[in-house]
Amino acid sequence: MVAADIKACLFDVFGTVVDWRNSVTRDLQEFGRSKGIEGVDWLEFAVEWRKLYQPSMDEVRSGRRAFTILDVLHRESLVTLVERYRIAGLSHADIDHMSRAWHRLDPWPDVREGLGRLKRTRIIAPCSNGNIALMVNMAKRAGLPWDCILGAETARAYKPMPEAYLASCRQLALAPAAVMMVAAHNPDLKAAKAQGLATAFVARPLEYGPGQTTNLAPDRSFVDVAAADFVELADRLG
Amino acid sequence: MVAADIKACLFDVFGTVVDWRNSVTRDLQEFGRSKGIEGVDWLEFAVEWRKLYQPSMDEVRSGRRAFTILDVLHRESLVTLVERYRIAGLSHADIDHMSRAWHRLDPWPDVREGLGRLKRTRIIAPCSNGNIALMVNMAKRAGLPWDCILGAETARAYKPMPEAYLASCRQLALAPAAVMMVAAHNPDLKAAKAQGLATAFVARPLEYGPGQTTNLAPDRSFVDVAAADFVELADRLG
Repeated sequence: MVAADIKACLFDVFGTVVDWRNSVTRDLQEFGRSKGIEGVDWLEFAVEWRKLYQPSMDEVRSGRRAFTILDVLHRESLVTLVERYRIAGLSHADIDHMSRAWHRLDPWPDVREGLGRLKRTRIIAPCSNGNIALMVNMAKRAGLPWDCILGAETARAYKPMPEAYLASCRQLALAPAAVMMVAAHNPDLKAAKAQGLATAFVARPLEYGPGQTTNLAPDRSFVDVAAADFVELADRLG
Repeated sequence: MVAADIKACLFDVFGTVVDWRNSVTRDLQEFGRSKGIEGVDWLEFAVEWRKLYQPSMDEVRSGRRAFTILDVLHRESLVTLVERYRIAGLSHADIDHMSRAWHRLDPWPDVREGLGRLKRTRIIAPCSNGNIALMVNMAKRAGLPWDCILGAETARAYKPMPEAYLASCRQLALAPAAVMMVAAHNPDLKAAKAQGLATAFVARPLEYGPGQTTNLAPDRSFVDVAAADFVELADRLG
């Protein structure tokens, strides 16, 4: 991989760009306080919610379910959890608000500076399983200067399905080799590399909290560039 | 229509945001000079190219042809014209370069300031018949600060088909009444209003040159707001 050949950087978002674990917890805590809900461990709740993420997309990946945007899947998983936690008295609007906690995630501290620098020389876009509205609302709130929003909704396929990566390259009219996938997760990068994209690993060792044991280091068999954060990535790509 | 209810502004692009006529002419003139092509009136050529725009999309709108992005349609129309003008000796790469003249269009003078101000309070996105790569490359070159790229490719429908407007609202998770379509063309606004969107007319009386006779004034039967340019539109929306 030659850095000058990379015309676009695509970013995984949940975990790589934003700290979903602390942000969802913070958002639900605020909501719980405003509603006088007591006795719920909202950090545990956020982690349980995230555990339903992959199974909900598997229904779509397998073809058992027509393509459905993540906002809908997030809301269905939330309804399941609200019942499991026996949280009573929530209106439809309350559930909508809680579900949109995923629109209000905070970036890791290096993100805005790193993206701003990368944007000067390249196209930058999310390639996330989040839908367009989620990505746009998150970007407006968090100040993420994307050039466009790509990912599951524009590809109508969830990562790590090949089409999620290939459609994003095609929509930019770029060959996969001119596009770099940036993620904190080795499986995402392995899938991108299998479609011919360049890959960059940025470690996010606190994504799952202080006891995290996975994705602490890049798998060099398919990772082209490893950087400590987005600012170092911008330095490396020049 | 209450301005505070408008959460997103969608923009027609060719003619409304950018001056396609002078920009395509400028781009082809530069190309012609670099190749030593003589005797072609590139302004006439640009206008003839634009005349093939609606017929090429009609093939898709009618269902006779599967959805095909505008870069492909532009290139096919260009090949037709190159033959008609008997311009010989062009390579595949030359035709690609000429076809991408539509990626290198210049904005009207008020656009960057107006979009920058509108972006502070609302989502701003193109809702153009141009494809994603075209819109992204244009925006990078021209400094258009879109929040995301919507339009024909994400909707898989060409304006003025209802789905082009409705898919864009749906992808932002907004009701049509919370979305304003901004265009210099009354037919675009009529079609948007029919789907429940708010509408703003911005006059571009030189889009077709000094002799322009159409779209000089808004049709008030479906236009909510009329502004002289994007800066005045930002003032009006507050």
